[in-house]
Amino acid sequence: MTALEQMGQQAKIAARKLAFAEHEKNQALLAIAQALREQEANILAANEQDLQEAKNNGMNKAMLDRLTLNHDRIEGMAKGVEQIAGQKDPIGTIVEGGRLENGLRIQQVRVPLGVIGIIYEARPNVTADAAALCLKAGNVVILRGGKEAFHSNQCITNVMRYAIASAGLPADCVQLVQDTSRESAKEMMGLTGYLDVLIPRGGAGLIRSVVENSRVPVIQTGAGNCHVYVDQFAKVDMAADIIFNAKTSRPSVCNTIETILVHEAIADQALPVIAEKLKEKNVVLHGCERTCAILPEAVLATEADWETEYLDYQLAVRVVDSIGEAMDHIAQYSTGHSECIVTENYQNAMLFTAQVDSAAVYVNASTRFTDGGEFGMGAEIGISTQKLHARGPMGVDQLTSTKFIIQGNGQIR
Amino acid sequence: MTALEQMGQQAKIAARKLAFAEHEKNQALLAIAQALREQEANILAANEQDLQEAKNNGMNKAMLDRLTLNHDRIEGMAKGVEQIAGQKDPIGTIVEGGRLENGLRIQQVRVPLGVIGIIYEARPNVTADAAALCLKAGNVVILRGGKEAFHSNQCITNVMRYAIASAGLPADCVQLVQDTSRESAKEMMGLTGYLDVLIPRGGAGLIRSVVENSRVPVIQTGAGNCHVYVDQFAKVDMAADIIFNAKTSRPSVCNTIETILVHEAIADQALPVIAEKLKEKNVVLHGCERTCAILPEAVLATEADWETEYLDYQLAVRVVDSIGEAMDHIAQYSTGHSECIVTENYQNAMLFTAQVDSAAVYVNASTRFTDGGEFGMGAEIGISTQKLHARGPMGVDQLTSTKFIIQGNGQIR
Repeated sequence: MTALEQMGQQAKIAARKLAFAEHEKNQALLAIAQALREQEANILAANEQDLQEAKNNGMNKAMLDRLTLNHDRIEGMAKGVEQIAGQKDPIGTIVEGGRLENGLRIQQVRVPLGVIGIIYEARPNVTADAAALCLKAGNVVILRGGKEAFHSNQCITNVMRYAIASAGLPADCVQLVQDTSRESAKEMMGLTGYLDVLIPRGGAGLIRSVVENSRVPVIQTGAGNCHVYVDQFAKVDMAADIIFNAKTSRPSVCNTIETILVHEAIADQALPVIAEKLKEKNVVLHGCERTCAILPEAVLATEADWETEYLDYQLAVRVVDSIGEAMDHIAQYSTGHSECIVTENYQNAMLFTAQVDSAAVYVNASTRFTDGGEFGMGAEIGISTQKLHARGPMGVDQLTSTKFIIQGNGQIR
Repeated sequence: MTALEQMGQQAKIAARKLAFAEHEKNQALLAIAQALREQEANILAANEQDLQEAKNNGMNKAMLDRLTLNHDRIEGMAKGVEQIAGQKDPIGTIVEGGRLENGLRIQQVRVPLGVIGIIYEARPNVTADAAALCLKAGNVVILRGGKEAFHSNQCITNVMRYAIASAGLPADCVQLVQDTSRESAKEMMGLTGYLDVLIPRGGAGLIRSVVENSRVPVIQTGAGNCHVYVDQFAKVDMAADIIFNAKTSRPSVCNTIETILVHEAIADQALPVIAEKLKEKNVVLHGCERTCAILPEAVLATEADWETEYLDYQLAVRVVDSIGEAMDHIAQYSTGHSECIVTENYQNAMLFTAQVDSAAVYVNASTRFTDGGEFGMGAEIGISTQKLHARGPMGVDQLTSTKFIIQGNGQIR
């Protein structure tokens, strides 16, 4: 039996206990929040070790920033865990129910998924966020973080395990994979007997690799090649405000936009206004030929630009002949995350929302709202861009399954 | 591009049209039902060809029976399709919705999954059932039936394609894989760019092979190692009736029971009554040592008996010391389909339904009720025994995904 299989076995045992925990789950979460604050010095020391190694290995500045913990970030982790404790417990919720003709009473009830594997990269705060969300939904979690954050993850995991045990739940509700080589990630993808689901959190490369290689069911999150279509009947100022917000308010996240499509009938009027607004943040525009004819500052786009998630102050711009051409472009290049139409025309709004096949489809609002908190679902583990199980923001409810409970008095068929 | 990839491409094109079909879907379904009746002679001729080949290859009687079509079975297929036409269209249903604080109106709306692959074995009636369910939920289907039923499947598929086209929908809403070798099944399991989900329908071997090898998301259906636990506080006659019904009313289906667990305090009294009742159908009992001491007619069970889906007039019997031991046995051997406790004790009923982790958990009723029709969900494509996406009977609602539609008037974040 490998180390990972042993973890899987321990996770299964813990899962059977955790599934029937009630108030202990919130006790454990509040204990985790308190312990994160109390153990700040130890966590920062472990993080310093990771940072030193990373600097010695020549890690770039953006990566170093993601890896860095400090007082505010640890406080943020603790607050996040407290917020999750404050949410409604999904387990036991009756999703649907009633009485059948033969007198049987039937209820469909929320239950935990079981054991969740999470493969993530260099952000150590994921360790606490993900574990807390899984715990709230009654799931045991096996975490496999990046090697760059190993000491930080190890310390945070130990702090959490101690806190969980203090609330009377098995410490094995949270386990950290000790081997951070590629092999351990591969082994997790084949751990079908122990893991009920695997969630990759990180860049597009990690997610693709897990989706392509895992035999454990995967929930795919995060890839966002999002679009705004400026319809012929758009209010130009509204379009510019939405585009500015959706591109520049936080360019590194998945609900930011990467391409805008502008109807030819409004392009001459709208593009200069949009470009002027985006200049405030020095956004580089990659335009099609017609765009470049209107905006001399735009650089000529190539096919690759329509496919790129810049996650940066860059934006692709294409002029289209019709709403149909805009929807065809989206069908071809979108990752199915979030798209928006800006229009005052009723028929076009109806058409776009009916036919665009993405997790979130907007009329006259920024795609930046695709977020568990904004949608009123509380903290999220990611935005699912797949169609099975959950689509869109995944909060604690989406980390559950259901079962049917049927009560009779001797019915036979 | 392989033949299967080309099918995938055609399916994608058809899916974009089918997703927005409304009354045409029911027109197509009613046309299919009519065409199945009108083309009975051709379907029976194709089936006769399959039957001749099967007899020449020495197919056994049970398999031959599954392969055989006749007037009644074709009428049954047509009636099944009509019933599906009569069900509510799930597409467009608002699952949840409301207004956010910033004035955004948000709706979670049912949409089709997209393209569904179905791999099945020798029963040609699956061809019409599965295609009709997929069509109703707006999904395009690629069918890969067994080689034994190829001529029947081919004829039924052609009849359906013609009927679908007559209703103004793309004939490619239903396609049949022409290559029935193992290689084509394998290729389907890797068709991630085209298939949104793969559903195997057939025996345990087929399902295991697909679950273990597919990179397309799989919905696992059908494996049913189901249990009845006769509690110390059971009514003996009720227990015997439920066991008799759950074992003998249709032993070849997945919601039939395979093992009963009997509390030791009631075993002496209950086992003879249960055994007497089962004698009516000559059910062979495989008992643990304590069972054999009470029932001399029982044969001694081995470890394999607790794991076996007999799908026949055979039943494993074990005497247990407590409800806890019964639940441990179920946790170890169950496939997570359906389990039942027979008891008059409130606490034990609550405990069993809370802690047994199967798709359907019963108190005092036959496990044979685990069925889409019985649960009021209409026709089903199978009983899901997995926890992701859908658990329990899968009707048309479970063949859908959702998306969020968000309507604003210029909101930014």
